[in-house]
Amino acid sequence: MRLDDLVTPALVVDASAFEHNLTTMAAALPGERLRPHVKAHKCTAIAARQAAVGHSGFTCATVRECEGLAAAGLGGDLLLANEVLDTRRLGVLVAAGHRVTLCVDSPATVEAAVAGGVREVVIDVNVGLPRCGCPPQEAGALAELAASKGLDVRGVQGYEGHVVGLEDAADRTAKCAESMELLREAHRAVGGELMTAGGTGTYAINTWATEIQAGTYILMDSAYGRLELPFRQAVYVLATVISTSAAGWSVADAGLKAFGMDHGNPALEGSSVWFCSDEHLTFSPPRPVGERVLVTPAHLDPTVAYHERMHVADLSSGEILETWPVDLRGW
Amino acid sequence: MRLDDLVTPALVVDASAFEHNLTTMAAALPGERLRPHVKAHKCTAIAARQAAVGHSGFTCATVRECEGLAAAGLGGDLLLANEVLDTRRLGVLVAAGHRVTLCVDSPATVEAAVAGGVREVVIDVNVGLPRCGCPPQEAGALAELAASKGLDVRGVQGYEGHVVGLEDAADRTAKCAESMELLREAHRAVGGELMTAGGTGTYAINTWATEIQAGTYILMDSAYGRLELPFRQAVYVLATVISTSAAGWSVADAGLKAFGMDHGNPALEGSSVWFCSDEHLTFSPPRPVGERVLVTPAHLDPTVAYHERMHVADLSSGEILETWPVDLRGW
Repeated sequence: MRLDDLVTPALVVDASAFEHNLTTMAAALPGERLRPHVKAHKCTAIAARQAAVGHSGFTCATVRECEGLAAAGLGGDLLLANEVLDTRRLGVLVAAGHRVTLCVDSPATVEAAVAGGVREVVIDVNVGLPRCGCPPQEAGALAELAASKGLDVRGVQGYEGHVVGLEDAADRTAKCAESMELLREAHRAVGGELMTAGGTGTYAINTWATEIQAGTYILMDSAYGRLELPFRQAVYVLATVISTSAAGWSVADAGLKAFGMDHGNPALEGSSVWFCSDEHLTFSPPRPVGERVLVTPAHLDPTVAYHERMHVADLSSGEILETWPVDLRGW
Repeated sequence: MRLDDLVTPALVVDASAFEHNLTTMAAALPGERLRPHVKAHKCTAIAARQAAVGHSGFTCATVRECEGLAAAGLGGDLLLANEVLDTRRLGVLVAAGHRVTLCVDSPATVEAAVAGGVREVVIDVNVGLPRCGCPPQEAGALAELAASKGLDVRGVQGYEGHVVGLEDAADRTAKCAESMELLREAHRAVGGELMTAGGTGTYAINTWATEIQAGTYILMDSAYGRLELPFRQAVYVLATVISTSAAGWSVADAGLKAFGMDHGNPALEGSSVWFCSDEHLTFSPPRPVGERVLVTPAHLDPTVAYHERMHVADLSSGEILETWPVDLRGW
């Protein structure tokens, strides 16, 4: 099977760039120093490759991601880096022998963890992003509450999500340090072996966290591509030019249902993208009808979530080497 | 089963608003005057309801949508309102007795239709949106080419996609008339029983088209909600508040993988939405952890495409009446 045989739009992985990203990160953050975030790729085949190079623990954003990894034999140490109020499905995983650690940031989420049969938690700490996490100064009391309810508190989480995408490296480094100082304050009060944080944008500069939750590095997108990281663009949406206008534009058959759009339009090398419709990408200058193009997503995670599978290809020969189900979608 | 039992995020349909929209449109554009566009809901259960009130032909954006409707017994008159270069799967549908009419806008797409076994086409005409469609003055020659290759040319399509969302009604009406004058010019040259066009924003003012391709009207979104149409908001993403900060915000568990984001943030009544993350919606003022909220998508079509199913509920009682698979996703 070759790229030319694929129904478009189709998610295509550049095998060479994928291997580069896998080995580059494994060298920089070997073994348990990286806890890959599966929300970026939603694919147990990729998680298995990450485990094979030494990253045996995973970060998840949803219960479904935990269930899918466990079913794939990758449930040895799963961190659900989010608050969950109905934890019964997580309790089922724990009872079946998988290790699931859940974030808590309030008495209500502690109660929820206990109620569903979760046994291990980390205290989620707000380190500057206005999202989940308790204030650093409240982390100790929350850990005591969790312990008093019989939960094992493994440490703290503090995601510097407002920092990971900053394009200025010095700014990113300075703000990462500020965030991690808050997390260290919480960790001093909570204790435990985990101080989990970080992302692709801070994987090399966040030296305070005990483990980094990077996800995007393995496939990349145009947003992180601007940060001068050592990872290569490894995923594209393959599309077919279906219409061309003499007035100066062409249309490819990949649109709003093939790309996460919160970071703006996807990119097509050598072209200016005008806009996306549900199943269309209008761009200039025009290309011939029938030509196939590789379009770079602006934001990986919500792009992958639209696709049922990804095809791993040798882009130089056009040969498809493997096809991986995107099997961690939904909730 | 009740709304409180659902795993969140979950797509929820307000049964009462749905019935209102269904009957309001069926009264305004009865029978074949409406060719509902299934790309908006991607759900054969909804298409069956639309057929039951008299709309027996459907508009599709993808081959998969055609296949799904045909498999559901709704393949009596399908218009694939898009250009397709690999038409073999459509040829299979035609050979099996389903009626599939395909858009063509170039000699290459005419050749593609013939090659795959498609027998009926409409000439797709550009009426102002820089996307697919031939110039109006070239439609006649393209129809002759198609006929010379043995295709049955049923008429013309001209989607005024640059007009349907205009918030000023007078502006929308004037620009719709301009677009339809171009389509009439093409139709005079092409002939045939179909002059297919329109959308939810122009369903009442596009009196030139023989049929209207509206899709969003049945479920609606906040973008079309600004147009003072007689349709009610009928779909929401149900989410759970999982975290609340004393600093003044809350977080619900629905984010970039639950909402199409090209039209901006979704809306939460009585609240200000700050931003979405992959699985989070940060908003103010804060609400209690555990509260469930109904969030209105900004753009229906790419929102539905993220979800596996939708739950039809009586919102006043909280009872779930039916659950419909979103079974027309993918390509």
